[in-house]
Amino acid sequence: MKKVEAIIKPFKLEEVKEALAEVGVQGMTVTEVKGFGRQKGHTEIYRGSEYTVDFLPKVKIEIVVQDEEASAVAEAIVKSANTGKIGDGKVFLSPVEEAIRIRTGETGGEAVSVN
Amino acid sequence: MKKVEAIIKPFKLEEVKEALAEVGVQGMTVTEVKGFGRQKGHTEIYRGSEYTVDFLPKVKIEIVVQDEEASAVAEAIVKSANTGKIGDGKVFLSPVEEAIRIRTGETGGEAVSVN
Amino acid sequence: MKKVEAIIKPFKLEEVKEALAEVGVQGMTVTEVKGFGRQKGHTEIYRGSEYTVDFLPKVKIEIVVQDEEASAVAEAIVKSANTGKIGDGKVFLSPVEEAIRIRTGETGGEAVSVN
Ligand SMILES: Nc1ncnc2c1ncn2[C@@H]1O[C@H](COP(=O)(O)OP(=O)(O)OP(=O)(O)O)[C@@H](O)[C@H]1O
Ligand SMILES: Nc1ncnc2c1ncn2[C@@H]1O[C@H](COP(=O)(O)OP(=O)(O)OP(=O)(O)O)[C@@H](O)[C@H]1O
Ligand SMILES: Nc1ncnc2c1ncn2[C@@H]1O[C@H](COP(=O)(O)OP(=O)(O)OP(=O)(O)O)[C@@H](O)[C@H]1O
Ligand SMILES: [Mg+2]
Ligand SMILES: [Mg+2]
Ligand SMILES: [Mg+2]
Repeated sequence: MKKVEAIIKPFKLEEVKEALAEVGVQGMTVTEVKGFGRQKGHTEIYRGSEYTVDFLPKVKIEIVVQDEEASAVAEAIVKSANTGKIGDGKVFLSPVEEAIRIRTGETGGEAVSVN
Repeated sequence: MKKVEAIIKPFKLEEVKEALAEVGVQGMTVTEVKGFGRQKGHTEIYRGSEYTVDFLPKVKIEIVVQDEEASAVAEAIVKSANTGKIGDGKVFLSPVEEAIRIRTGETGGEAVSVN
Repeated sequence: MKKVEAIIKPFKLEEVKEALAEVGVQGMTVTEVKGFGRQKGHTEIYRGSEYTVDFLPKVKIEIVVQDEEASAVAEAIVKSANTGKIGDGKVFLSPVEEAIRIRTGETGGEAVSVN
């Protein structure tokens, strides 16, 4: 299995969720995070004033899927989260060795299956 | 080493912590997250009203342990977090290549040892 | 690629960020977490009163870098986050198989490159 982890702009969360639903994703975990990328020190408008912001609010999405689903999930995120402007975010893929559904004890693919 | 990562119902945190202490876990990190599993769109009572909730509040627990401890830790979580109802959560296991205790510089098993 | 993940004392974040900038880190993600290590049950002063605290506020930092940069990044964190007192935190290294910059579609080293 793979973990697909994405750091995106918060206002893109709804659109990304819809794109993920379309490729069959049924489970995901979302965390509010602060990020900096290469736009560090970048000037932006926040609550009506111009700030040289350091950390920017971002949203982290984590989805564990079977190996063969990972690239479609990553692609759905990249397409739906893209605005073409700096700070759009990153997607990371990493290995997951086991998954367990707590309610049933199911493991592996059955625990993360999209069906 | 392995990371044992669990997404559980928030009200189960105390019980899971106690179960982890019993198997010797001394270090863990807890994050408030929002999740959706297959109960997406599920109707539940929240603050006295009925909502068709989308994201549900969950708690993520992360514990890095030596390889041989990982399955006991996962099992302790599965047992203590289980209510038998949908939304009980997931446990994921993934590889960790190095660990360092910042205060002492200890690495590997010594950095995460339960003793 | 590697994920360098550190759990540190919140007041050390500025110092760690500066140390990371010095080794060329351009992107990082920060999450507020609660932790316990071996100082569990430890008595400390919080908001003017003495408490036997259980979970302590910590900050998690995540940085994905190329393999050859990981040890310098980990070392910069260990040095800058160290106070010599219990609870200084942990650094974990884990494998990352792919990275994508959402704006450009760049992958791998180019997506996380420090230049
Ligand atoms: N190497 C990294 N490791 C961990 N998190 C990262 C990394 N790079 C970026 N991030 C996270 O992703 C968020 C968005 O990054 P961002 O899109 O600005 O990347 P970038 O490389 O600067 O690309 P761009 O030039 O399009 O802005 C950051 O605020 C941070 O939370
Ligand atoms: N594949 C997944 N990837 C990442 N996080 C997940 C995944 N599946 C579930 N989660 C997280 O775990 C939480 C609980 O999931 P949940 O227990 O509802 O899983 P489920 O597969 O729907 O099982 P059940 O049928 O018992 O409800 C979700 O709210 C989400 O935060
Ligand atoms: N094995 C672990 N897995 C996951 N998170 C951990 C682990 N150990 C520690 N942590 C996280 O790191 C934080 C700081 O840990 P801490 O520095 O107290 O580790 P320690 O092993 O008790 O070392 P010390 O003796 O220096 O206090 C904890 O509050 C927790 O969030
Ligand atoms: Mg940027
Ligand atoms: Mg469910
Ligand atoms: Mg400690």
